[in-house]
Amino acid sequence: MSKIRKTVMAMEGYIPGRQPKGSFVKLNANENPYPPSPKALEAMGAVGADSFRLYPSSTAVELRKTAALVFGVPFDCTVAGNGSDDIFTMIIRSILDEGDTLAVVDPTYTLYETLAEIQGAKTEKHPLKEDYSLPESYFESEAKLKILPNPNAQTGTLFPKEDIVRLVESAKGIVVIDEAYALFSGSNAIELLSRFPNLVVTRTMSKSHSLAGLRVGFGLAAPEIVEAFMKVKDSYNLNAASQAAAREALLDGEYTSGVIKKIVETRDDFGKGLATLGWEVTPSWGNFLLAKPNSGDAAEITAYLENNGYLVRHFDTPRLKDKIRFSIGKKEQMDELLELLKKYTAR
Amino acid sequence: MSKIRKTVMAMEGYIPGRQPKGSFVKLNANENPYPPSPKALEAMGAVGADSFRLYPSSTAVELRKTAALVFGVPFDCTVAGNGSDDIFTMIIRSILDEGDTLAVVDPTYTLYETLAEIQGAKTEKHPLKEDYSLPESYFESEAKLKILPNPNAQTGTLFPKEDIVRLVESAKGIVVIDEAYALFSGSNAIELLSRFPNLVVTRTMSKSHSLAGLRVGFGLAAPEIVEAFMKVKDSYNLNAASQAAAREALLDGEYTSGVIKKIVETRDDFGKGLATLGWEVTPSWGNFLLAKPNSGDAAEITAYLENNGYLVRHFDTPRLKDKIRFSIGKKEQMDELLELLKKYTAR
Repeated sequence: MSKIRKTVMAMEGYIPGRQPKGSFVKLNANENPYPPSPKALEAMGAVGADSFRLYPSSTAVELRKTAALVFGVPFDCTVAGNGSDDIFTMIIRSILDEGDTLAVVDPTYTLYETLAEIQGAKTEKHPLKEDYSLPESYFESEAKLKILPNPNAQTGTLFPKEDIVRLVESAKGIVVIDEAYALFSGSNAIELLSRFPNLVVTRTMSKSHSLAGLRVGFGLAAPEIVEAFMKVKDSYNLNAASQAAAREALLDGEYTSGVIKKIVETRDDFGKGLATLGWEVTPSWGNFLLAKPNSGDAAEITAYLENNGYLVRHFDTPRLKDKIRFSIGKKEQMDELLELLKKYTAR
Repeated sequence: MSKIRKTVMAMEGYIPGRQPKGSFVKLNANENPYPPSPKALEAMGAVGADSFRLYPSSTAVELRKTAALVFGVPFDCTVAGNGSDDIFTMIIRSILDEGDTLAVVDPTYTLYETLAEIQGAKTEKHPLKEDYSLPESYFESEAKLKILPNPNAQTGTLFPKEDIVRLVESAKGIVVIDEAYALFSGSNAIELLSRFPNLVVTRTMSKSHSLAGLRVGFGLAAPEIVEAFMKVKDSYNLNAASQAAAREALLDGEYTSGVIKKIVETRDDFGKGLATLGWEVTPSWGNFLLAKPNSGDAAEITAYLENNGYLVRHFDTPRLKDKIRFSIGKKEQMDELLELLKKYTAR
């Protein structure tokens, strides 16, 4: 089909976490094992037929007011998206022209590169150091746009605040800190927004708020940047049900804190358990753990776990292929997973 | 902010129908006055907490199976979007490179041009003839992409099937027929899909299915084209609640036919009423009517109606500024609207 853009023909496209049929414990997409706040479900149920037949708020006004309150930023510094993936699309489409450069680290969330590719932009990859910390080259890069998840996707590494400040301060262009996992880390870059007009912070409700199925995310930035995002975003990017449910979930901070506390405790226990089995565990500040088995092939172990009802994530990439990324489920699930791994080692 | 793309800085952005606070009868965004199928609302209520905490189907498999069934096309000829606006984004991003040309008619749905602008593509506008039929130049254009709504947005005109066939047959590139209003017209281009590999038909559930608030649309095309759309679309573009509700709404054909029948009858009655008042009514095959007052200023009449609780749409563009576009509400609403217009004339 020569009628399709060459760039798109050549692309592979982003590959989401698998969603096979059958009854699995899904620990492959960093989903939250707990249900969302009951208040979110209630709000959803209370959305009347009129909210379905009418267009939703195209600028998600009420939801953004709530986000401004909860994140402690002015209203005009907020934009809402159909998941933070939608925010990344806004970022790429409003900042990168064909041929421009996006700088990312490696390994990281691979969607950034896919989106740059669609835009006809180049992606410059800066390999993280052995300990997954930021390389000098990433600070020095003059790319028009840098996107860095903190904590980092896949590895769980938390880059220290001083690195983030240095990155934003020295950047020639815009720096995006993707804080999908920030609430599991106790650290965030939102307070830096008032100091740096070239900083964008993104958030998602998919991880800490158990709303992956509803697709809600936010971009926080200077009003000039938000204005550009508003121009390129889909006019009605968030549906009425999501807007209503997300608002209540955001306001139910107590519920969210409780869920996060449980996940962080389970993560740390699971990490100790893996270490006891001889696995090499990367310290994580997210709701997942990257770890390397002391023996055996990571792909094979992934398949073994799947055969036993547990889906985990194996990335077939140079630096990750000898490791497995485990999303953190409920305590009892992680305990059972450890038992399965013990059995595997004992075979 | 020099860090934003020049194209985006210069853009105005798409302006959606107004959504003012207060109790108005909204006849300005071609929304459906009737609620969606009760089965859709039930399906939404039945979505469990697990569907919220987990990512939705990234390829909307079950919904697309239903769409394939209802539209009578193979499964791999379908793609689902967050409203048909999302499908237009997929189209533009997979077909137009920077500098390429999109050809549209004028007047038409203005979002197409906005999306081309974001992509850095040019838009070629072909003024419709006096009677809003297609000009020769539109057939002759060698643009890489043509998007034509049928019935046309804003005017309500239905372009005859032979024009559509000629357009697709003679095109050098891809032709998109936007069938947002097709179910109100009794005509569609879906049967042409098997003959023309360069044809894309889009559908939305916002108009005929009363689901504007849920954001669900479809693209129907040859598998090669659908594959390209899948690569550029947001990975999880449709949330779990929308997928579930839309499926039931699609299957409830009896309910939809009933709603459409009422709207078409009301539209035709309202058109006769306007004609009796001396208005010049453009024949419409959509759920709206474009009409020109016999006396008085269209913008002033729009303001008068708003003061009396009725929101209608006035486009301040050369060919439409002397007209008003009325979305078709319930029979009693349109009767009251006619009474208001009578009073206005009698003042």
